[in-house]
Amino acid sequence: MPSVRIAIAGLGGVGTETVRLLRAGREGFRRRLGAELEIIAVCDRHAAQKARRLGLPARVLRLTDPRRLAALPGIDIVVELLGGLDAPRRLILTALRSGRHAVTANKHLISHCWEELRTAQRAGDSRLLYEASVAGGIPIINALETSLAADRIEAVYGILNGTTNYILSRMREGMERPEALRQAQALGLAERDPVRDLSGQDTADKVSVLASLVTGAWIRPYLVRSRGIQDIERQDVVFAEEVLGRRVKLLGAARLSGNDRQPELETFVSPTLIPLDHPLASVQDEFNAIMVRAAAAGDLMFYGKGAGPGPAASAVLGDILRLGRALVSGASASPPRPAAAVPRLADSDSAFYLRLAAQDRPGVLCAITSALGRLGISISTIHQPAGDGRTAPVIITTHAANPGTFGRALRDILALGSISRRHTVMRLLS
Amino acid sequence: MPSVRIAIAGLGGVGTETVRLLRAGREGFRRRLGAELEIIAVCDRHAAQKARRLGLPARVLRLTDPRRLAALPGIDIVVELLGGLDAPRRLILTALRSGRHAVTANKHLISHCWEELRTAQRAGDSRLLYEASVAGGIPIINALETSLAADRIEAVYGILNGTTNYILSRMREGMERPEALRQAQALGLAERDPVRDLSGQDTADKVSVLASLVTGAWIRPYLVRSRGIQDIERQDVVFAEEVLGRRVKLLGAARLSGNDRQPELETFVSPTLIPLDHPLASVQDEFNAIMVRAAAAGDLMFYGKGAGPGPAASAVLGDILRLGRALVSGASASPPRPAAAVPRLADSDSAFYLRLAAQDRPGVLCAITSALGRLGISISTIHQPAGDGRTAPVIITTHAANPGTFGRALRDILALGSISRRHTVMRLLS
Repeated sequence: MPSVRIAIAGLGGVGTETVRLLRAGREGFRRRLGAELEIIAVCDRHAAQKARRLGLPARVLRLTDPRRLAALPGIDIVVELLGGLDAPRRLILTALRSGRHAVTANKHLISHCWEELRTAQRAGDSRLLYEASVAGGIPIINALETSLAADRIEAVYGILNGTTNYILSRMREGMERPEALRQAQALGLAERDPVRDLSGQDTADKVSVLASLVTGAWIRPYLVRSRGIQDIERQDVVFAEEVLGRRVKLLGAARLSGNDRQPELETFVSPTLIPLDHPLASVQDEFNAIMVRAAAAGDLMFYGKGAGPGPAASAVLGDILRLGRALVSGASASPPRPAAAVPRLADSDSAFYLRLAAQDRPGVLCAITSALGRLGISISTIHQPAGDGRTAPVIITTHAANPGTFGRALRDILALGSISRRHTVMRLLS
Repeated sequence: MPSVRIAIAGLGGVGTETVRLLRAGREGFRRRLGAELEIIAVCDRHAAQKARRLGLPARVLRLTDPRRLAALPGIDIVVELLGGLDAPRRLILTALRSGRHAVTANKHLISHCWEELRTAQRAGDSRLLYEASVAGGIPIINALETSLAADRIEAVYGILNGTTNYILSRMREGMERPEALRQAQALGLAERDPVRDLSGQDTADKVSVLASLVTGAWIRPYLVRSRGIQDIERQDVVFAEEVLGRRVKLLGAARLSGNDRQPELETFVSPTLIPLDHPLASVQDEFNAIMVRAAAAGDLMFYGKGAGPGPAASAVLGDILRLGRALVSGASASPPRPAAAVPRLADSDSAFYLRLAAQDRPGVLCAITSALGRLGISISTIHQPAGDGRTAPVIITTHAANPGTFGRALRDILALGSISRRHTVMRLLS
């Protein structure tokens, strides 16, 4: 029986679970693939100790330096689960250029080195799969690459970060943000340094991956207009539910318009007020969900656990099996989607939510509404809940406005003497 | 540029939309595939007229007899969208045996001729794809075949029939079943003869397809324990929401247990009471949604439009593209999943809902509860809403019980003189 030879770099949570599943499912893979999925080498700072704990046979090489793994002969698939950017990048580029396939869960790598990785795949006639890099165990990458490849994708958007969704779920139940964060950290759902999650950067990386996949052109993460949940207070979440009948979610979104020759793309990450009957509104706790709007298929949603060793390892194994099938059948796996044309970056109009803290004195509201009106932004609702006497919250929702124009109006408002710099901005999903 | 030669049988709604999308997306397919997707022949009772309406070039053959299409030389992929069973079966078997790939949206064919179709694929080293046969545009088949192929599937269940889900959604808003059905028919969401939808047979076919796919063994549709929504009244739906805090959905389910050597399978179709916070509870109108429970990935949900020309054509096109890629790369598409072992059919315990119409006289309730108690079925709740004086509804929910035992108890109860034969049974999803 032929054998597909695998090297695994990184034996953290996901790496360990991948090895465990590969070994536990051995017989099933053999039957389905007509080949053996064989672990040839593992690489980890504590490779010997971890290999022993995993019960790996003595013939499996234990390496501590990923550069040695990159140079090993006879490997078919390199699985990169190291974390970080530099070592994974070097390892995967070497593997791809030398004609080996690779699998990674590293969204940061995919979003930041897209073009380089694509060139390396072309050079080596090799293929990099990365299902686990977005939304963990949810097979969104494969769905976009194969099932929906023949459809025209108009939008991909959703809840792509489990940490912030967990925090927002707790805030809805009445917890303050810092306490919700501590609880997420205690449950292992948030990292000790949660800034990439809270600021929306993690979500922006995933939007970059999805947008690049759908357009075929590299959409760099820093081009994604991003706002996190660090300014969202419990009062915003409660006000949204009770007064506006909407739920706060951190959305990452990519919307495509125009045509094949002149495509236009809008991307953003933003806390967003979602109608309660929208499928995304019922996505709670650490779950992820991605909506896809396709011209023919209509609205689709993919829902599941976005993180954790099990879901990520399931996705990694799915990728290994896809590559294994291609190897066994003698075909190269399908190449990355070529770009029709590099899309022009666009902003479409959105309704906004703005909470300000204003000094409780006459004329302030007039100044705020004037600042919006001057730039042609029309107001939908204004609420002034009772304040503490000195300052009062002012909550404004607007009709659809250009995000850039809204940003300028916001700067004008914050420059008013009677308005605190602290404020909250969200989008409204129509 | 190489060309993938396609014949399309059946130019109804889905066939017409498939042709339209193939032609509209031509340039994109060429770029993504490195090959031309070329329609060589169409077959339809009104082929000439429909080809003209679609603006097909003169070189495209117009046939009226599918048997002539089956004999055409030089076809790579036969797309079967005829409807019915005999003509599709003959066409696809001929195509597969002679080494051509095939695509179908025909769940009835897949579920009833599974073994024959598999043998034909083996004989011709060809491949039949059928994404559109279950849940329209939702890529559940591909997800189970590729992304999740390395995971252990423990359950696949969901809302697989848009017609009944539409009817139940209207009943929840207060409409009676017959009126909801008429509205569904007026909107083109229900066929003129809706019996296959209402009785659960359509859902049973889809459960058969999913269960066969996941186990690798043919699970015949008649083995799926099926109950439809024809006995569900508005009062059941309203009582479920208001008193039990649950929502009525027609579920199709396959659950796997045991191990690779001795797998066990439970399948059923049943109206089911779903907790309101379950992701399936918010699936409204004609939408479909499928939950997958995988050992490593956890709970996943796939949601979208389960029917209609657009969604079905999107799935058909995805299949065509998958086969096209395999043809271009020179590899055979991955073969169907082999069975580890034929699963033993099992019944796991379920809680039940039972509504009876009893004569309003002393002793009736005692007789009912005794009938359940004798067979060891323990009662969770009993409700007796006010009746019309002569008969009174009795609504009972049980704790988990064996479905066979519950069925026996039900027969005993219906044999009591004081109970009407008309009754409603549902499952409770735990």
